[in-house]
Amino acid sequence: MTSGIITLLTDFGADSPYVAEMKGAILAVSRLATIVDLTHSVAPQNIRQGAYLLDRTYRSFPYGTVHVAVVDPGVGSQRKIIAAEINGQIFVLPDNGLLSVVAASGEATQLREVANPKLWRQTVSATFHGRDVMGPVGAYLAAGGLWDEVGPPTSEIARFELPAVSRKAGLIDGEVIYADSFGNLVTNITRNDLESVEILSIEIDGRPVGPLSSTYSEQNTGSPIALIGSSGQLEISIVSGSASAWLGGSFAGKVKIEVKS
Amino acid sequence: MTSGIITLLTDFGADSPYVAEMKGAILAVSRLATIVDLTHSVAPQNIRQGAYLLDRTYRSFPYGTVHVAVVDPGVGSQRKIIAAEINGQIFVLPDNGLLSVVAASGEATQLREVANPKLWRQTVSATFHGRDVMGPVGAYLAAGGLWDEVGPPTSEIARFELPAVSRKAGLIDGEVIYADSFGNLVTNITRNDLESVEILSIEIDGRPVGPLSSTYSEQNTGSPIALIGSSGQLEISIVSGSASAWLGGSFAGKVKIEVKS
Amino acid sequence: MTSGIITLLTDFGADSPYVAEMKGAILAVSRLATIVDLTHSVAPQNIRQGAYLLDRTYRSFPYGTVHVAVVDPGVGSQRKIIAAEINGQIFVLPDNGLLSVVAASGEATQLREVANPKLWRQTVSATFHGRDVMGPVGAYLAAGGLWDEVGPPTSEIARFELPAVSRKAGLIDGEVIYADSFGNLVTNITRNDLESVEILSIEIDGRPVGPLSSTYSEQNTGSPIALIGSSGQLEISIVSGSASAWLGGSFAGKVKIEVKS
Repeated sequence: MTSGIITLLTDFGADSPYVAEMKGAILAVSRLATIVDLTHSVAPQNIRQGAYLLDRTYRSFPYGTVHVAVVDPGVGSQRKIIAAEINGQIFVLPDNGLLSVVAASGEATQLREVANPKLWRQTVSATFHGRDVMGPVGAYLAAGGLWDEVGPPTSEIARFELPAVSRKAGLIDGEVIYADSFGNLVTNITRNDLESVEILSIEIDGRPVGPLSSTYSEQNTGSPIALIGSSGQLEISIVSGSASAWLGGSFAGKVKIEVKS
Repeated sequence: MTSGIITLLTDFGADSPYVAEMKGAILAVSRLATIVDLTHSVAPQNIRQGAYLLDRTYRSFPYGTVHVAVVDPGVGSQRKIIAAEINGQIFVLPDNGLLSVVAASGEATQLREVANPKLWRQTVSATFHGRDVMGPVGAYLAAGGLWDEVGPPTSEIARFELPAVSRKAGLIDGEVIYADSFGNLVTNITRNDLESVEILSIEIDGRPVGPLSSTYSEQNTGSPIALIGSSGQLEISIVSGSASAWLGGSFAGKVKIEVKS
Repeated sequence: MTSGIITLLTDFGADSPYVAEMKGAILAVSRLATIVDLTHSVAPQNIRQGAYLLDRTYRSFPYGTVHVAVVDPGVGSQRKIIAAEINGQIFVLPDNGLLSVVAASGEATQLREVANPKLWRQTVSATFHGRDVMGPVGAYLAAGGLWDEVGPPTSEIARFELPAVSRKAGLIDGEVIYADSFGNLVTNITRNDLESVEILSIEIDGRPVGPLSSTYSEQNTGSPIALIGSSGQLEISIVSGSASAWLGGSFAGKVKIEVKS
């Protein structure tokens, strides 16, 4: 199944002409694809941040959407490019850990090495596989192409270790995985982790942030607040402000939740 | 009537993954909608700036376009969400003043409270009604949905007071309402205000800016210039420069025009 | 032939509402056009930079794509607007040099002065011909409109002189034409210039950058590297870093290549 939608996540920078070149290459293969920018503001070559942003964002799209993600410090080396189907969605990206977070949430129902040059641009540059390989292969799949044409099945996905939420005797420990553009701090603690526990206190890097709230309007402007964000993860925010700035920009981001045991 | 176009104006920041989530939610409701970014660079929670930018920008779009605007400091509180039809265009946004400038220019031919959860995402978060409510409702209307399904009619639109242009004995007083990305200062004085008057002088914050010009090429590079901008409003600019920087970044933006009385 | 795709390149700034106004005006003429942003981050009124970015980026798009480019310091003066077909692609832009680099690579198979107000917006402002003239004319051509309707044939294209690559007795001299968002320095020396020569050394502004490499992985992180970039031009980079920062931000960008003679 294909929705005909292709999303792009890269570290090329907002408004980069390289993104435009990828879109041209995609439309040359699949003229009626709908292309949506996930974000191009991943910090340069920061695979970990890209992996979390990809996981967070792809879930809003219809089943059968193709997500092409290019954070690719190893371009031109021996790293593989893979295409995978997970949770009803399709991912085309370098096999360098960028799929780690998505892959932790579901089995791959298709997993191929991208290896068939017939689907690529006629000339493949050494430095821009987003335009020359991943974009065209994503466009091929979005247009209803065949998995068998993409390349041979493979069984391994390169992954980095995800920081785990630990829970022992009255304490839940987690950490900040990224800050959004408002300075909200998104943690790896989920709604599930907090279900059916009674929270006594929440703190980040030793600073108290009050009880778990439901909406920003429960606390005063300028106060720290903890709530379950729109992705189902615990977030630490400042009402009408920036939690990232509140912690001084650089922070450890260690979150401790005392619960009744 | 619907053009099938949906525009988005938010304070999420350029290239934000939150914008991408809204687009995914919209395409899940109306797969063939054409989505256009108005801007996502509204200053965080600055309803007033968002209201002016929305008013300026929507006019270039075909009739029946849906404009979803999310500058929403009260998300999760009791503020309503409304859908309105004004001047042949459709607006879906929080009822917090964001429609003030558009509403000053025409009667609402439809005005509904957004109140039918059947049109929303299955799970509505407490903090992201742009993705979970406003986007899907906008998509529903763009796909030709029925006003009666959106929610009950309402008759009030929350508004802030627009700064008026005053005119008395030989003097027109106005003010800067925003600076664009070139540093051009857009004022609340319109072409109509200046019709059939003879201008003697124009100044901003006490500095003379010369006569009213028709094009930039009438003044030298680096000179201040006053002209009617592309939105029909008086703008103060520096030829090939930035009027915003010329006034030192922070400025009162009070404009005085002496006219023959 | 038309692909139905319209690209936009401007100096309006990323996420500018002016870009959105152009898109509205385009969709009002050609509702089913696919609009792609090339970039809006051309430095204000920097025709030269815009010309290089346009040349680099248009090549990835299908034949018959319309490229509307607006870097237009002379808006409202007597500068002409032109529409041209070169290398199977269509360009609509002010005749101020912005087409110089594209025009150096192929003959114009169509070249018209944009002169038929019937194709423009009903009211044309003095300061925003991107929205009022160039966008609508581009949309007309993308929808399959007739060249004869655009305006009379013309034969001249305004051009600036392109810096030439010089080659004499064992030395190839070129220069940096722009830096991309990663800080890679793109030069005017092409793959062709280096074919069938044996390179002895490469330097930029007097600093050695090692031999010509094929991929980033051939040098260590932090090292300078020279390779043929994805556009077929010689680029100077720092592996996992910024060559632009390495040279101290401001640099002459003079590239000297010693070759066996």
